[in-house]
Amino acid sequence: MSVSGVFVWFLVVFSSLRREKMKTGRWMSLVLPLVAVLLAGAIPALAQTTIPSEVSEETLECIECHSTESMGIYQQWGTSKHFRANVGCYECHKADKDEADAFDHEGFLISIIVSPKDCSACHAKEVKEFDESHHAKAGAILGSLDNFLADIVEGDWNFYGGSALTVSGCKQCHGGVVEVNKDGSLKATGWPNTGMGRINPDGSVGACTACHQRHAFSAAQARRPENCGKCHLGPDHPQKEIYEESKHGIAFAAHEDDLNMENAKWVLGEDYTAAPTCATCHMSAVRTTDGELVPVTHDVGLRISWNNRPPASIRPEVSDKKLGLEKMAKVSWQTRRANMVKVCTVCHTAPYVSNFYEQYDGVVNLYNSKFAEPGIAIMKLLYENNLLTPTKFDELVEWTWWEIWHHEGRRARHGASMMAPDYTHWHGMYEVGKHWYTKFIPELREIVAHNANSSDPKKAEAAKALQAAIDELLARPEHSWFTGNMPAAEAEKRKKAQDEFKKRY
Amino acid sequence: MSVSGVFVWFLVVFSSLRREKMKTGRWMSLVLPLVAVLLAGAIPALAQTTIPSEVSEETLECIECHSTESMGIYQQWGTSKHFRANVGCYECHKADKDEADAFDHEGFLISIIVSPKDCSACHAKEVKEFDESHHAKAGAILGSLDNFLADIVEGDWNFYGGSALTVSGCKQCHGGVVEVNKDGSLKATGWPNTGMGRINPDGSVGACTACHQRHAFSAAQARRPENCGKCHLGPDHPQKEIYEESKHGIAFAAHEDDLNMENAKWVLGEDYTAAPTCATCHMSAVRTTDGELVPVTHDVGLRISWNNRPPASIRPEVSDKKLGLEKMAKVSWQTRRANMVKVCTVCHTAPYVSNFYEQYDGVVNLYNSKFAEPGIAIMKLLYENNLLTPTKFDELVEWTWWEIWHHEGRRARHGASMMAPDYTHWHGMYEVGKHWYTKFIPELREIVAHNANSSDPKKAEAAKALQAAIDELLARPEHSWFTGNMPAAEAEKRKKAQDEFKKRY
Amino acid sequence: MSVSGVFVWFLVVFSSLRREKMKTGRWMSLVLPLVAVLLAGAIPALAQTTIPSEVSEETLECIECHSTESMGIYQQWGTSKHFRANVGCYECHKADKDEADAFDHEGFLISIIVSPKDCSACHAKEVKEFDESHHAKAGAILGSLDNFLADIVEGDWNFYGGSALTVSGCKQCHGGVVEVNKDGSLKATGWPNTGMGRINPDGSVGACTACHQRHAFSAAQARRPENCGKCHLGPDHPQKEIYEESKHGIAFAAHEDDLNMENAKWVLGEDYTAAPTCATCHMSAVRTTDGELVPVTHDVGLRISWNNRPPASIRPEVSDKKLGLEKMAKVSWQTRRANMVKVCTVCHTAPYVSNFYEQYDGVVNLYNSKFAEPGIAIMKLLYENNLLTPTKFDELVEWTWWEIWHHEGRRARHGASMMAPDYTHWHGMYEVGKHWYTKFIPELREIVAHNANSSDPKKAEAAKALQAAIDELLARPEHSWFTGNMPAAEAEKRKKAQDEFKKRY
Repeated sequence: MSVSGVFVWFLVVFSSLRREKMKTGRWMSLVLPLVAVLLAGAIPALAQTTIPSEVSEETLECIECHSTESMGIYQQWGTSKHFRANVGCYECHKADKDEADAFDHEGFLISIIVSPKDCSACHAKEVKEFDESHHAKAGAILGSLDNFLADIVEGDWNFYGGSALTVSGCKQCHGGVVEVNKDGSLKATGWPNTGMGRINPDGSVGACTACHQRHAFSAAQARRPENCGKCHLGPDHPQKEIYEESKHGIAFAAHEDDLNMENAKWVLGEDYTAAPTCATCHMSAVRTTDGELVPVTHDVGLRISWNNRPPASIRPEVSDKKLGLEKMAKVSWQTRRANMVKVCTVCHTAPYVSNFYEQYDGVVNLYNSKFAEPGIAIMKLLYENNLLTPTKFDELVEWTWWEIWHHEGRRARHGASMMAPDYTHWHGMYEVGKHWYTKFIPELREIVAHNANSSDPKKAEAAKALQAAIDELLARPEHSWFTGNMPAAEAEKRKKAQDEFKKRY
Repeated sequence: MSVSGVFVWFLVVFSSLRREKMKTGRWMSLVLPLVAVLLAGAIPALAQTTIPSEVSEETLECIECHSTESMGIYQQWGTSKHFRANVGCYECHKADKDEADAFDHEGFLISIIVSPKDCSACHAKEVKEFDESHHAKAGAILGSLDNFLADIVEGDWNFYGGSALTVSGCKQCHGGVVEVNKDGSLKATGWPNTGMGRINPDGSVGACTACHQRHAFSAAQARRPENCGKCHLGPDHPQKEIYEESKHGIAFAAHEDDLNMENAKWVLGEDYTAAPTCATCHMSAVRTTDGELVPVTHDVGLRISWNNRPPASIRPEVSDKKLGLEKMAKVSWQTRRANMVKVCTVCHTAPYVSNFYEQYDGVVNLYNSKFAEPGIAIMKLLYENNLLTPTKFDELVEWTWWEIWHHEGRRARHGASMMAPDYTHWHGMYEVGKHWYTKFIPELREIVAHNANSSDPKKAEAAKALQAAIDELLARPEHSWFTGNMPAAEAEKRKKAQDEFKKRY
Repeated sequence: MSVSGVFVWFLVVFSSLRREKMKTGRWMSLVLPLVAVLLAGAIPALAQTTIPSEVSEETLECIECHSTESMGIYQQWGTSKHFRANVGCYECHKADKDEADAFDHEGFLISIIVSPKDCSACHAKEVKEFDESHHAKAGAILGSLDNFLADIVEGDWNFYGGSALTVSGCKQCHGGVVEVNKDGSLKATGWPNTGMGRINPDGSVGACTACHQRHAFSAAQARRPENCGKCHLGPDHPQKEIYEESKHGIAFAAHEDDLNMENAKWVLGEDYTAAPTCATCHMSAVRTTDGELVPVTHDVGLRISWNNRPPASIRPEVSDKKLGLEKMAKVSWQTRRANMVKVCTVCHTAPYVSNFYEQYDGVVNLYNSKFAEPGIAIMKLLYENNLLTPTKFDELVEWTWWEIWHHEGRRARHGASMMAPDYTHWHGMYEVGKHWYTKFIPELREIVAHNANSSDPKKAEAAKALQAAIDELLARPEHSWFTGNMPAAEAEKRKKAQDEFKKRY
């Protein structure tokens, strides 16, 4: 235990013995300055201006109870850098009268939520970077199609007028509005919640605790792959699983003790090279192969050159613009890719990295051109011609198309982005291909059949247009195999390649 | 190596040198008392009455061979607390003549199976708690619907007259009857098996080794999440995966070295607070925020307030009563929840925990009322009206309904219980919703269409009743979106909420 | 840092200071012999004949740049056994003029690919064993049906005339041809690639780096289960997931620090017994219960007694023969099983192991006889009678059958092979059974219905033959439940067993 730790412990024990006789706060105000002077020589490193030189009286009073009540909080804080910096309970939880979630607790005005605005008192750079990033817009999903699923398809209106599923599902990753009762307590609609795009009672956006779990705020924890796996896993974006399959994940499992993860200065190329975690590549500091020191950033999009979220992959500056992220809308994908290449080349040669990106782009382009763009066009045709109702998810083909792009197509693209072959193929494009030919196309044909002889001439006309679109699509070389019309030249070429290959074995 | 360890080793080596000349047992009987007296001062901690003061002669003879033959067993035992307590091979494996699985092995009567009855000689409290718990009834499944799948649908009768799949599948988690050949050896139908509800040759139920892997019997191993993942994982109850996504699992991955997991006294709030494992919350000792010491229990249901196993969630005292667990049938869910809250509040405040339970109950109630109860009612209608054969799983809708509740609905409820949003939504209610509207309802309509004009007037009547049930169901507010009849007021409210939300971004 | 490490570091720093003035190579040639003589007494262990006695001049020159450029490579190498053995950059990457991928790099002729042929200069035994193994034929898949999926169904011809998906999917595990540009650089079609069956520019097969990740070449990393999980995971061969569920995986998670994994001599039964990894059972050295020392092997098939890859499980010597593995074609499955039993019996008794194999064989035989063999026969009937087009995957039943054997049936068999009940049942045979009765049989009936009244008399005849085959199949005892014709005796037996079982609870 550090000097200041001993000091805190001493005060806590001592003051509890006396608390019946004298109001601690007052007593503290007499003794503390004296003790502080006495200890000043012993702990010069703490005698700084921007960091409290000692634990505050208010926090000491919090500790009096919380060293036993919900003591996990106190103990975890005791392992944190906050403890050593004398940043305690009160420093983070104190509130002003005009804050909606302020309430009186044992004579102190505090709030439960510690928002990015609160954190920015010390961590202004980090909060600014976060505010400028894609992560800050995580909550925008809640007005979108995904939310229709949780709110309406899967939900009802019986949880404070909304869907309990949205609260325990979507909002736990995307964030939601933290609603405050009149007495300052928080509604279960928005708390507990550590969603990335949480809208806090003070108007700020985000939840630092999404990654920096309270109350240890361990650097190593935030840098580990499981941390990102709180949200980045599962059928629609299995980045955690993909990482674990990749050579990067295998190296991490074997060498995690060599990664120096508790180090404050955690610079790839200086402090470690044994393996990268999610944070390494997307956020953390790097000493580049040219000697440049790239600092850590909390803007997670600065090194990403494809946005693989939409039905067809787009460039991130395009989606950032749509989201109103002004700064990031001006950062081209080429710049972002150059940023990532600086990370890659700490451990890989430039030709390796360049070839990798060719492979990755190849998969994205294949997916985009063969499946995504035709699929988008056909779905548009269906809606515009009233071959589907405007209501989403009430017709089978809507589910089919949704899973092709939102689940399977993403898995393929994410898999390729991190070199996890099983996710690229079996969990990814294999499923895209399977459902394209065994569900999407047959369901489209069903719609044609159903409307071809409709008494509504517009629908009959639309069915014809759909049939023409299907025919045009399946006549393209890449789909021609399905109707048995693969170009003879291609078939011949393929057979020859196979024969040659087999000769090798 | 401890003093007693050195002692054992010495004896083993020494006796093997002499084994040709003198029967070890006799030689031991001469030397051991002397050596024991000499060592008595040096190892007072071992000089107790209830624990053997030295390794038994019989065990020493076992070791003579097994220090090389299947030596893994010997080495693992050497790392165990049993070793230090002089509890060796013979103490656990000795058998009486009248035990069905007793057999002669090198002059000793032993049995392979060490049953809970055997373990209870020293661990009576643990075995009693286990016997009173839901875990003790794990084998009851083998007379149920699940078992019909493994026995009949997937199986044949070619493995000793039964299904090999039941042996390698169901029974490995649920347990089965350990069958004994005439020579005391065990049939492959029931051995190897470490299923929780195993029925042993001595009539006792259970397998301590289900969690306490032989022969190290490591406390840390039993306390780790992977341990429970032997059975609690996969499509129908992915508790392990859910834990790993949760903040609890993330904290465990980051801080597992700070959990003091080898400590005999492993009390949350005293020995660790960095992260909980499955054992922490469901079984292990806790120093509560009020100062109470809650001891460890082997009754895993004492802190669980929902039984999410059945089609619709019920209270655990109800299912415990059905299973004949008399003691637990009297422990209300409120008491069990209060027990769990004592664990939660070591690290979380009471309002946090209370809000969490509101969220969790919200998801359970949503699932129960929107999907489970209507689904149960409709399936009942189908069977009672002979719209389905009595044989299970020979008709498509039976599979559909089964997966909705047994796989997907459970995932949602378990996901919410541990705050893993991906399992609550994508792996859970999303699948429930998808299959409800794209499979269950369409398949019901198919049954209506198939029977509406049946020559059997009862079936035609039943089809009408089914149609009416479907209509009534889909007219409910929470299903009204599907037929395009969402109440205008709700649609308006929703649109407004979306617009407001979008303005924030 | 070792003595030689200090030495290298000194030379690197010193030479970089001087590099502007004097060509390092020449300067080294003057100083090195002198330094070597001076250090000779201090590092006698390095003064061997077969291992370089010092870091080569060429490697030192590589280091001059690469201690900063892509320094991760340099640092990882610094942790490797290669470093201590003075095997550096040049020793592995040097190339001859006649090698296709040789190119000039700063005055040295090198190649990027370090092939098994290169590695065999020091590791001849390992490469020979690999060459004789199933692993060496991993690339043969690329002329097969799987490849049709990635090349044609999911792919297009826009990535150098082929499918980008094959490059980022299949080839990353199976290997592919490394194609070389005229300037010696590598095409993105084949590089980056660490596929097991890679065909290298020098004609050799394989990629040691598939398991031994460059440039640390850590023994512990190669021995860990995640390592094999690079390829052995996912829907079609989830060995990694299966291992993690098994008792072996649970023991590994709890005891990984006790496995002595960095030890050069890593002998089960000598260096560890706490848990096995994939390598332990399939490859690594074992001190058997009879005292025999079985050395490590790089032929991964020597202990495997079933090949569960094909639609129906076959014996490995049969498939090895088909693959042209002459040596392995002569090693019977009984010999291989005996090899594995030697591993098992280090920690398990012989009766345990024998019963386990009965259980495993039971599942394989059940799967083979109830589903695989009938399925194969029916698919053959379909193709031979032109009820399906010759093109694969253009008809629904082809996908259904494919997933039954290629995904689900394999999971069941692999699950049983490692005692992971969830994979044996829920992920395995449950899915086989579900899709057999709800998809395969109905789709076959659909084909009958579609062709029964065909104007082509051959098709009408074929439809009759198919119907007869379905009838014959469903009349077998193990399928009889599906048509409600379970033999009364069996039904009675089953009911009795259930009743008896229920009485126990």
